[in-house]
Amino acid sequence: MLVVSTTGVVATMIATGEDRLGQIRDAAIVVDGDRIAWVGQKSSLADAGLDLSGADHLDAQGALITPGLIDCHAHPVFAGSRAGEFADRAEGKSYLDIAAAGGGIMASVRATRAASTAELAAACKSRLDTAFSFGTTTCEAKSGYDLTVDGELRLLEAARRAGEASPVDVSPTLLAAHAIPPERQDDRAGFVHEIIAHTIPRAAAQGFARQIDVYCDEGAFTVAETRAILTAGKACGLTPRAHVGQFSDLGGAELVAELGGASADHVENVSPEGIGALAKAGVVAVMLPGACVQLGMTPPPVADFRRAGVAMAVATDMNPGTTYCESLPLQMWLATTHYRMTVPEAWLGVTRHAARVLGRDDIGVIAPGARADLVVWNAETPADICYHYGPSLATTILTFGQAHTIP
Amino acid sequence: MLVVSTTGVVATMIATGEDRLGQIRDAAIVVDGDRIAWVGQKSSLADAGLDLSGADHLDAQGALITPGLIDCHAHPVFAGSRAGEFADRAEGKSYLDIAAAGGGIMASVRATRAASTAELAAACKSRLDTAFSFGTTTCEAKSGYDLTVDGELRLLEAARRAGEASPVDVSPTLLAAHAIPPERQDDRAGFVHEIIAHTIPRAAAQGFARQIDVYCDEGAFTVAETRAILTAGKACGLTPRAHVGQFSDLGGAELVAELGGASADHVENVSPEGIGALAKAGVVAVMLPGACVQLGMTPPPVADFRRAGVAMAVATDMNPGTTYCESLPLQMWLATTHYRMTVPEAWLGVTRHAARVLGRDDIGVIAPGARADLVVWNAETPADICYHYGPSLATTILTFGQAHTIP
Repeated sequence: MLVVSTTGVVATMIATGEDRLGQIRDAAIVVDGDRIAWVGQKSSLADAGLDLSGADHLDAQGALITPGLIDCHAHPVFAGSRAGEFADRAEGKSYLDIAAAGGGIMASVRATRAASTAELAAACKSRLDTAFSFGTTTCEAKSGYDLTVDGELRLLEAARRAGEASPVDVSPTLLAAHAIPPERQDDRAGFVHEIIAHTIPRAAAQGFARQIDVYCDEGAFTVAETRAILTAGKACGLTPRAHVGQFSDLGGAELVAELGGASADHVENVSPEGIGALAKAGVVAVMLPGACVQLGMTPPPVADFRRAGVAMAVATDMNPGTTYCESLPLQMWLATTHYRMTVPEAWLGVTRHAARVLGRDDIGVIAPGARADLVVWNAETPADICYHYGPSLATTILTFGQAHTIP
Repeated sequence: MLVVSTTGVVATMIATGEDRLGQIRDAAIVVDGDRIAWVGQKSSLADAGLDLSGADHLDAQGALITPGLIDCHAHPVFAGSRAGEFADRAEGKSYLDIAAAGGGIMASVRATRAASTAELAAACKSRLDTAFSFGTTTCEAKSGYDLTVDGELRLLEAARRAGEASPVDVSPTLLAAHAIPPERQDDRAGFVHEIIAHTIPRAAAQGFARQIDVYCDEGAFTVAETRAILTAGKACGLTPRAHVGQFSDLGGAELVAELGGASADHVENVSPEGIGALAKAGVVAVMLPGACVQLGMTPPPVADFRRAGVAMAVATDMNPGTTYCESLPLQMWLATTHYRMTVPEAWLGVTRHAARVLGRDDIGVIAPGARADLVVWNAETPADICYHYGPSLATTILTFGQAHTIP
């Protein structure tokens, strides 16, 4: 048993009255193995009926304690750098010019195909370790940079290995429909069929991926293609999600809602009907402000999502092309400034709502039975983590009940 | 003597042909004490006529090496947190409502006045150490959160002490005209007179501050007041600078140009005439993208500055109200995405042009005679530092020739 205590605040992320973050002052958390056994005010601990003789103690003094952060939209399995392309875009070159010169997503596909599974796992582990240093304890890992049947399975395997080697728990997602690879440009229907007939069943049999994602947008997959792929995935037990409305509103939000999917991600361009559909179906809208800033897009209609009652998550979108960043707290700063989200919305976005996106109810909260993933911050209030941006303010992180000190 | 070498790139920041960053591949840098003695291709080192017997060696393998970064606009000397106000603004409360509730700059003034000089020096040192971990080796430290004669001198003293305790070299700036304090609201002219008659001469006699800055904007100081204060500062040997056009274009850019100042900072709102005046006078425009994003302002007309030939710097604006961030690389990401600056512009903005803002020609470049402030990065090209944002990519930092390993 381990008793973690603070004279400051524990934010449980389970609303109490007006406080959406369920903050408890002068609190204690009892950890039993990899699970939380109890949380409450220190003064009530003696009455909790727990045998704490021989328990270890972690005194966080006045520090803020929160659940471990959850990055519910990330592409950490890739090889190669696209820094040169980044520089070209800063010089004013268009995305089309860059793609014509061999850049864009296909540059990452070439480098990823050329890398060994061990190299990909090592690169992914390094990114997860960086994310961990900023407080992330669970991270999604999408495939999507190989775009062949065997290759996509290999990326899921690399994600699994990286998760085993890192303190971060990895949630693999099959994104075989990330783009049409160059060798299949004239065989679009065949490529989609291959995903449905081969990649999805094999990924389901492999057992690592929990979700299926499609990039539904202009220049990527149509709504009809997305429907076919997500439906096939769902039939194999993978929860549907989609990249929706990053550049154009094709009606992807309505589709995810119709299919009972977990999330619609990016959502810069979504109609009032799309927002209504997400609200009605309980689909989470995933905000990715880093990519939005980097691409110079107009932010999503956050106030409309809020008014409609759509739950919002916030994620890094960590990827080699449009935003290469492992830090969730930095995305929380962007969310609360550039996106005009509130501090509680940003916090729920990287904890409870992010857990919901990943289909989990045992992470993202501090409650009995939840996994003992905790972050002790060099901060006093939840707002501090949005406000003071750049450095990591995490000092101690528990994953599965094991404490790690952040240098 | 210390020989620092890489099979990768040294970016000297002194243009060679088309390359504005003066990159040398397979390069060596010879450090003699706190100065750079030689830089060039490794293959030329033997012909340089240097006695390297007994020299130490730092093999950076394939790593990028640049000058130490220079943060030419920062307010690191303050006490208290304004995270609560940050949360209120994210909830939609207006700046005026927050100021009426005792928030805004006056909240920082109250907390700073209540702190001891030792506490302020310790808080400043902690921020400098964080900046250092991201590659900053020289940092400006403005006063401006006390707003009394003795208090402003005390803040400059705290900045000096923090610099002595930190590996970062501090460049103190007198910003006595940061705001009109509440107790002087009815005595505006008297407050300005006090700065001119007492604060400036005493700061000049104290000898720490090298520059004088005024917040020239709507709700702060008028152009006439700014002119009087900067002219008085200049007469005492302090180089003029001004916060200009953050909210409104009052003509501050033209004034700084007329006075032969070092920089016009913020510059979101500057007329074509103002830009022309800066170009003609060789005044550097300091870009502060973090504050711009946090306040939801429209970015400055970067393309117009570029076309007019105005040198641009990039800085953190690190302060407790509008942007609390110590990381220059993060501001470089914002500069190259949100501000549409190029990668070379961002790099010159945190090295050579930033040095020019601080009136220095011995930092911000890798050249014989320059101070031996170097950063070894976990990166291959200058673009990497803008592209991969969030974590610090600095691995070893030299200041005054002394090497520090970054964890």
